[in-house]
Amino acid sequence: MIIEKINSPKDLKSLTTKELTILCDEIREVLLTKLSEHGGHIASNLGIVELTAALHYVFNSPIDKIVFDVSHQSYVHKILTGRKESFLEKDKYDDVSGYSAPSESEHDLFILGHTSTSLSLACGLAKARDLKGEKYNIIAVIGDGSLSGGEAYEGLNNIAQSDTNTIVIVNDNEMSIAENHGGLYQNLQDLRESNGKCEYNFFKALGLEYHYIEEGNDVAKLISALSEIKDSKKPVVLHVHTLKGKGYNYAEKDKEKWHWGLPFDLKTGESKVQVPVDYNELTANYLLKKIKQDSNVVVITSGTPSASAFTKKRREAAGAQFVDVGIAEEHAIAYASGISKNGAKAIYPVYSSFVQRTYDQISQDLCINNSPAVLIIFAGSVYGLNDVTHLGLYDITMMSNIPNLVYLAPTCKEEYFAMLDYAISQKEHPIAIKVPGGGVISREIAECDYSKINKFEITHQGEKVAILALGTFYHLGEQILDELSKYGLNATLINPKFITGIDKELLEKLKSNHELVITIEDGILEGGFGEKIASFYGTSKILVKNYGIKKSFPDRFVAEELLRENGISLEQITADILTLLNIK
Amino acid sequence: MIIEKINSPKDLKSLTTKELTILCDEIREVLLTKLSEHGGHIASNLGIVELTAALHYVFNSPIDKIVFDVSHQSYVHKILTGRKESFLEKDKYDDVSGYSAPSESEHDLFILGHTSTSLSLACGLAKARDLKGEKYNIIAVIGDGSLSGGEAYEGLNNIAQSDTNTIVIVNDNEMSIAENHGGLYQNLQDLRESNGKCEYNFFKALGLEYHYIEEGNDVAKLISALSEIKDSKKPVVLHVHTLKGKGYNYAEKDKEKWHWGLPFDLKTGESKVQVPVDYNELTANYLLKKIKQDSNVVVITSGTPSASAFTKKRREAAGAQFVDVGIAEEHAIAYASGISKNGAKAIYPVYSSFVQRTYDQISQDLCINNSPAVLIIFAGSVYGLNDVTHLGLYDITMMSNIPNLVYLAPTCKEEYFAMLDYAISQKEHPIAIKVPGGGVISREIAECDYSKINKFEITHQGEKVAILALGTFYHLGEQILDELSKYGLNATLINPKFITGIDKELLEKLKSNHELVITIEDGILEGGFGEKIASFYGTSKILVKNYGIKKSFPDRFVAEELLRENGISLEQITADILTLLNIK
Repeated sequence: MIIEKINSPKDLKSLTTKELTILCDEIREVLLTKLSEHGGHIASNLGIVELTAALHYVFNSPIDKIVFDVSHQSYVHKILTGRKESFLEKDKYDDVSGYSAPSESEHDLFILGHTSTSLSLACGLAKARDLKGEKYNIIAVIGDGSLSGGEAYEGLNNIAQSDTNTIVIVNDNEMSIAENHGGLYQNLQDLRESNGKCEYNFFKALGLEYHYIEEGNDVAKLISALSEIKDSKKPVVLHVHTLKGKGYNYAEKDKEKWHWGLPFDLKTGESKVQVPVDYNELTANYLLKKIKQDSNVVVITSGTPSASAFTKKRREAAGAQFVDVGIAEEHAIAYASGISKNGAKAIYPVYSSFVQRTYDQISQDLCINNSPAVLIIFAGSVYGLNDVTHLGLYDITMMSNIPNLVYLAPTCKEEYFAMLDYAISQKEHPIAIKVPGGGVISREIAECDYSKINKFEITHQGEKVAILALGTFYHLGEQILDELSKYGLNATLINPKFITGIDKELLEKLKSNHELVITIEDGILEGGFGEKIASFYGTSKILVKNYGIKKSFPDRFVAEELLRENGISLEQITADILTLLNIK
Repeated sequence: MIIEKINSPKDLKSLTTKELTILCDEIREVLLTKLSEHGGHIASNLGIVELTAALHYVFNSPIDKIVFDVSHQSYVHKILTGRKESFLEKDKYDDVSGYSAPSESEHDLFILGHTSTSLSLACGLAKARDLKGEKYNIIAVIGDGSLSGGEAYEGLNNIAQSDTNTIVIVNDNEMSIAENHGGLYQNLQDLRESNGKCEYNFFKALGLEYHYIEEGNDVAKLISALSEIKDSKKPVVLHVHTLKGKGYNYAEKDKEKWHWGLPFDLKTGESKVQVPVDYNELTANYLLKKIKQDSNVVVITSGTPSASAFTKKRREAAGAQFVDVGIAEEHAIAYASGISKNGAKAIYPVYSSFVQRTYDQISQDLCINNSPAVLIIFAGSVYGLNDVTHLGLYDITMMSNIPNLVYLAPTCKEEYFAMLDYAISQKEHPIAIKVPGGGVISREIAECDYSKINKFEITHQGEKVAILALGTFYHLGEQILDELSKYGLNATLINPKFITGIDKELLEKLKSNHELVITIEDGILEGGFGEKIASFYGTSKILVKNYGIKKSFPDRFVAEELLRENGISLEQITADILTLLNIK
């Protein structure tokens, strides 16, 4: 096999076109084998095989610098830059991350995983190159889906006026994770259908030189197109039409389903993993019901309908009451604010990691205006995604300190839906709900009037130690309570429910018969919930111990291990409490 | 005078074109009189007089809904919607804010002050209108400068596919605060020069219907153009060429200087207010020196060169080492990361309120990658801007909880420049520096190795009570120390310097001879510096009292009053300390 001889991009340069084509077929085989056994991003990598090979054939990485946007499509790049063993050898599968990783190779410049950043990063690389008087190519490879993000536009706008070598490759596979949305995509379609020659041209309107190549999976044609723009003295866009899922029948047919996947049977395409019913699925059913009951309800997604499990079928059922604004989190929040201000009901399910894109809009467009939109924060948990670029550990610190926002932490399924009911029905506040991590837990809950903002609930009245167990960790709080009872301790258990404020009255009362207050939260400690409790009790005799993850960027961790490192486990917390109370 | 008869937009409708033109002249007079006595946004309001009058003549506000982007150009709108007294009568000048304010009038839909949001907000208004089956016009008025912001593009992209009435008025006065930057602006120029007919068209490329009107200060022509697109059944863009500063000679000639100003002499154009040397000015001189010393240094602004006082003259002196990326904070951070990763030195001065636009990029593009770029945060203080949309109270909570970032709080001029020297010379961390609020203070400082991250400095060793006085409030800490000495207390004073971490060793040592620790910080308390100290001492006997502003959106406050409301004054803190130590 040719692939066995490829240890660096240099090894590509001596291959004939025919050999390159064979190599691409081999790579596709290797990808499908690994992904069917391991899972990962499938269709985007299958689509970009030839383009990646051509890039490394024509350009001279790492002197020429290539930045892959999002980088979930960089598997082929990894194979060609000295990391093929992690795709060929089963026991080395996990030696590479699913994204660009400078720690793995000098061919990866940035750790990245959020979309729409490559153009700005490349623009910066080019600026430094020019200041230092160096000469080489800077290439950004960006998917069509990523082009809807504001950061990509801002980058493109600055590249256009930079008057220096910056090569923008638009890898147009006609798809975001789901189908694309926004005016730009009609233009991309017109460009594809006219072989790049239609009347209006988004890139040319921004002042960029523009080239089009229809045969985006033909390595020879790609080499020729790339050779033409190599060493360009000014910014240039090469628009490449590729086929997402190329070479795997199921993926070509259902690109959305095959964007990312768990291990699957190569022959049948069936998933090998049984996924239990999760909050995404439960949420989809709930929201669809709301949509049918109330024509003023509208569910918004910013390019990730999977967050609330809005499959194509469900999107069709929702009709105009479901809007995918494309990868555009800033817009999604302002749009939700506009909808809510004008008397309809906007609900925006979004992943914790991506809501970071829209801090200012949450503050300015939403919260200053007190627009009663509803945000549902998915995977905001140590049990959520564990790639360093997709962590769900920061939403509490980011969101809970924004004035006017009410951020709720349900502890179980029943409470989650009760809070959703409240959030959707009220008109007073912007409300966000933090979906609990770690599987769906069901329990009986008491009636609650959530309009009484910042009202915590004592679910078990005890003494000496009170445990404020927020959201995900309420269940752990219950376990600690049981464990402490073995030592004759009747602890108090509190379900805070509200992340954005503290129940001063309740906290004040605890002083009378408690010595110690424990807080546990699902996220980093810094700027979070527990520190507010510590500050409240700062001038009293009550001791406070806060549990959360230490501020950091952990990568591909095992949740239970990370928690244990941060002192969060039944055994550790119980032991701490006994020590602090001088019982053991 | 005609203006005296205008109490609502309805009163415009009976006027003849000639009367409208006279009214516009009167408005301009009124604006100039108020602004010369009161200060405010000058040139943008002078430029938009006719367009605003025409909008209210043609459309039927508040049934038709008009959203002004940024809204610092909404003075004319305020005059025409029942608030003229606040422009005509000196003692009522402060009855209106400088921005759109729903509390003032039903003609203002949103509190807003950040740029590039109007399109998304309008898009949301239109969605709600359609869901509810209502019929009226939604109009967004956006300046050319605001169009470089990612949120504006995301909004435009969604409007383009919305297939419903949404009217986008591009108020093109050829300026942002300073001149425009980015590829888009060449296209706008081409459109202006070709009367809207040039080959490439940004708006048409996004699929939008496009109209152009050159005579943007001719009320009759504007009425005709607006009447044509009124009640459009689909999204439409009207590109209007206006003259920024129109009608005031000085402002027409130097649009940047006259964007915003303090009270001035109408005849000479001279400012009536002497501004003392501030950190902006000091920073400009410092950075220009750095630029001359090192060709790899590049200073970036996102449309606000005033943050670091980079006047036109200074920008010219800096040449390619100063880059204005336009209003594009997300890009600015990623660009800075790219520059720093490729071995040059990026410095990004930015206002506290606007850095909120780029939380995710600080986290992902900058901090995960540990790119050693330098951010200088201006007006991040209770003594900074006091409009609710421009507060500098949140940067600590927003930035200090992002992993890897080193956020420094200098206490005086000398420390500020020492920290800048360190930040620019090092290659280990992304570093942000919080410019102190409340005037430039000078004092002697000890040598410090800032590479020893999170090392606090004890500037006076005492006992019983330790005061951690961060940044701006170090001087207050000194005063408290003096005051306490009158009661025989020899307190400890600490300059924390680092906002992003705590000096555990030093805090541990304090336990031996202190009973109380005080923290004072310049920003909201929630998620800030003090709470971390409270959490650290949570399980010890040390009492902790945190001082900062309570999480809120205060509007047009007097700094000393807001501080006092939050218990922050020499008298209040001293009294608290004496009480907590049972001395008084």
